[in-house]
Amino acid sequence: MTTVGLVLYPQFTALDIIGPFQTLVDVPGLDVFFVAAEKGLIVDHSGKCSLEASRSFDETDSLDIVVVPGGFADRNLDNSNEVVKFVKKIHPTTTWTTSVCTGSIYLAHAGILNGLTATTHWASYDRLKALGAVPSEQRVIKSGRIITAAGVSSGIDMGLELVAVLYGDEMAKTIQLAIEYDPQPPFDAGSPSKVSPEFKSFVQGIFDNPNR
Amino acid sequence: MTTVGLVLYPQFTALDIIGPFQTLVDVPGLDVFFVAAEKGLIVDHSGKCSLEASRSFDETDSLDIVVVPGGFADRNLDNSNEVVKFVKKIHPTTTWTTSVCTGSIYLAHAGILNGLTATTHWASYDRLKALGAVPSEQRVIKSGRIITAAGVSSGIDMGLELVAVLYGDEMAKTIQLAIEYDPQPPFDAGSPSKVSPEFKSFVQGIFDNPNR
Repeated sequence: MTTVGLVLYPQFTALDIIGPFQTLVDVPGLDVFFVAAEKGLIVDHSGKCSLEASRSFDETDSLDIVVVPGGFADRNLDNSNEVVKFVKKIHPTTTWTTSVCTGSIYLAHAGILNGLTATTHWASYDRLKALGAVPSEQRVIKSGRIITAAGVSSGIDMGLELVAVLYGDEMAKTIQLAIEYDPQPPFDAGSPSKVSPEFKSFVQGIFDNPNR
Repeated sequence: MTTVGLVLYPQFTALDIIGPFQTLVDVPGLDVFFVAAEKGLIVDHSGKCSLEASRSFDETDSLDIVVVPGGFADRNLDNSNEVVKFVKKIHPTTTWTTSVCTGSIYLAHAGILNGLTATTHWASYDRLKALGAVPSEQRVIKSGRIITAAGVSSGIDMGLELVAVLYGDEMAKTIQLAIEYDPQPPFDAGSPSKVSPEFKSFVQGIFDNPNR
């Protein structure tokens, strides 16, 4: 079985990790599980969603695929952060190291995005750049064996691309039809380039609010 | 606060409920929580994702909004099913009763979709019709104060439409930009009308396999 470790940590964002989870978990041959510093319940950024990690970082010495979600805990990280340490430990063992949203901030802190084109939540491009990566407004970016995806919902697109890379287009299309992924957003406001500068600044302000 | 009960039950599908969750949880004024027959961890259809319910059906006598996800437990339901009983109890109290994917099968069993146009996962149209609803291949269908959404990933679209109905388009666009919902599926295979009849039958067969 190909092992897929989906990382959890306090203040993760739920859809960041459930998007990839749902594209991967029913694929034959993949052993998908949630992994965190400690086993047990991990609470998301809203405080309303608790997901169970079935493995600890300590008992996970290698993974074929790792997925690091974003969340609200990635400011003022340092090298003692458990997720950063886990990425440093696990990346040399993986076939694919991946992130969704500000999960790439952990990858950057682990030193594996230096000089690489990568993405993150649009409101965090500057932070990613300050950590040595080259931010780009793309939905999913493959740089060698590292894949980074944009904010929150982009993990669904990344997950399907990963399935295609691993098992071919037919398998990815099977999953896409199974999860009826034929998105029809009611508005066309899902990326910063599609809204007014004023509206973008307003939403950026929400993310920059230190009270969050 | 406007109360939003997200229903969990054994063998639910994770993205069905986390999609709406992520569109609603950060909206000011909404009190979002997971509710199930018993409080505690509820395991999804894959057995790999355990989510915590913070309230029981018994202690929930009214809700402004209820969301029922789909999953793999909705065949051979009868009136003694806990979710069906909860829908019967809670629907008279709600402003909006909603479902994602085969969550609408529970609504139909509860007798609230009789003669109404509604949707479900595409592979379950026949089952929904047999229960008295009028299935339609639309992403999100509003029939009075009941909203049904199509398979799995459609809950994101439904959640944003619900935010727009509750708080207006600007709030919905704020959430859409916050979750960077600018979907770019790698293939155009997300609905049955977009694939070949052979491919559709193949995927339908996976869902009809009684071993699941």
